[in-house]
Amino acid sequence: MSLLIVGSIALDSVQTPFGSNADALGGSAVFFSYAASLLHPVQVVGVVGDDYPSDALDRLAERGVDMRGVVRVQGESFRWKGKYSYDLQNRETLETRLGVFAEFKPRIPDEFRDADYVFLGNIDPGLQLSVLGQIHLPKLVACDTMNYWIHSKRDAVLELLGRIDVLMVNDAEARELSGDWNIYRAARWILEHGPKIAVIKQGVYGAVLVEENGIFYVPAFPLEQVFDPTGAGDSFAGGFMGHLARTEDLSSANLRAAMVYGAAMGSFAVERFSIQRFQEIGVAELSERVHQFGDLVRFEVEPSLEVK
Amino acid sequence: MSLLIVGSIALDSVQTPFGSNADALGGSAVFFSYAASLLHPVQVVGVVGDDYPSDALDRLAERGVDMRGVVRVQGESFRWKGKYSYDLQNRETLETRLGVFAEFKPRIPDEFRDADYVFLGNIDPGLQLSVLGQIHLPKLVACDTMNYWIHSKRDAVLELLGRIDVLMVNDAEARELSGDWNIYRAARWILEHGPKIAVIKQGVYGAVLVEENGIFYVPAFPLEQVFDPTGAGDSFAGGFMGHLARTEDLSSANLRAAMVYGAAMGSFAVERFSIQRFQEIGVAELSERVHQFGDLVRFEVEPSLEVK
Repeated sequence: MSLLIVGSIALDSVQTPFGSNADALGGSAVFFSYAASLLHPVQVVGVVGDDYPSDALDRLAERGVDMRGVVRVQGESFRWKGKYSYDLQNRETLETRLGVFAEFKPRIPDEFRDADYVFLGNIDPGLQLSVLGQIHLPKLVACDTMNYWIHSKRDAVLELLGRIDVLMVNDAEARELSGDWNIYRAARWILEHGPKIAVIKQGVYGAVLVEENGIFYVPAFPLEQVFDPTGAGDSFAGGFMGHLARTEDLSSANLRAAMVYGAAMGSFAVERFSIQRFQEIGVAELSERVHQFGDLVRFEVEPSLEVK
Repeated sequence: MSLLIVGSIALDSVQTPFGSNADALGGSAVFFSYAASLLHPVQVVGVVGDDYPSDALDRLAERGVDMRGVVRVQGESFRWKGKYSYDLQNRETLETRLGVFAEFKPRIPDEFRDADYVFLGNIDPGLQLSVLGQIHLPKLVACDTMNYWIHSKRDAVLELLGRIDVLMVNDAEARELSGDWNIYRAARWILEHGPKIAVIKQGVYGAVLVEENGIFYVPAFPLEQVFDPTGAGDSFAGGFMGHLARTEDLSSANLRAAMVYGAAMGSFAVERFSIQRFQEIGVAELSERVHQFGDLVRFEVEPSLEVK
């Protein structure tokens, strides 16, 4: 089963209370690929400028990431500069330089058009639709978006909703999209507009999956040290989709497991700057963390309550 | 095993986007007692003015709540008036009239001094200490407090921490108390100052229990309709303590179950104004909801991860 991500490949400069970095690897396709490639081979479609470090792309290839869909064009790579608040709960964008990303028109290579599992990273919803037009018969399409598109290209976002299986957004985006502040009503609104599954990420609190007939909640992993929240959501998506592509099982039970793999990947992402933590961990650390999620929520109550 | 609550007995006037009420039953002792009495008999120590509706106290007595520690004195009952934001996430206190509560000096009746399980609702920490001086040998003491006391009577709060087993506060209070915005570090700070257990409530997101050797997270119950958040925390405490008093088991496994009973009670509290929902439900509804929490977080992953 092949797993395809279409998204941004960026250079991030991030300031946190604990330090800062400059021109580090970032972008949805990069975080997604670093996370997902721990579980399953990944195909990437994206664009970089002629200034993007070649060894960064080589290292992704070494992880089993098929880079044949990454185009290098003349010009500057997408750069994002941001600053986080002291508690990492809010961030301010200091600078966005789209560079070659401004003209990105994703072309899916022939070899990728049979992709089974597809993740549409947060890009213009019109481009996301054009990607879907190039994929033959995907088994599962998941999609991210952001408030900017929800406001500026609402019609395209709504059209997209009718063509995807999973919408994966954060709570603010779910609220903006549905016009409802209650996230469970927002999720129901999403299900009424196409997707069979809504995944709503709540940052430091966890994430919830809502289907027609069930709700699953996974808390965020308890971390005493969070270093850099950038990329947590795309890493979550990488874990979620990587698990599904690896197991080829779209049952409700396995979607729950995918949520936990997602949450585990999100927790690794925030422990270091950029994708650094993914360079340190392997399958053993991932497996250990996934089981720690089980310890975090496990409880037993009597089958039937007896009160004297 | 006897279960004692010392706290406020109030009349609340609440404005929400869905309506408002006036002089409804409220206060920590009332919410706690309504919740806990579904699980175990409760003893209450508190004060009311001569204007407090007698039938309200009678109804508590009918639920197995021992009201011999409730003193009625001349003057006005404690009244609180508040207004919630459109999303119920913030509230503004419009008016607080302490009335007879201003002179409240809790005196524990002789019959209650052998209490095994004690909950100190949010009152002046000096009074909470005086309560502990009147109890012989409790098995477990849990305590709530608020930012006002953390700032104005920090020494008394710290002395109290050295004498209680469970501190049960919300995330903002844990942060103020510890001076740390990370709730897991804040919990560790709490454990280093006396309590063996920190329970940190996170409102619509859930609650976490931190012990020396373990962390347990229970999400908030997914509700599409939240009506009035007032009393959720005290109802949570009532479920938590009621379960422990009923089961007489302070193992880590049973503390987890207690958290789920707490979360269930908190979810009932917010579904109607005041204590109305507790008048509608019984043991069957409680048991059903507790098991729904199991469905909400249950997942399975392979014992050891195999990646091809």
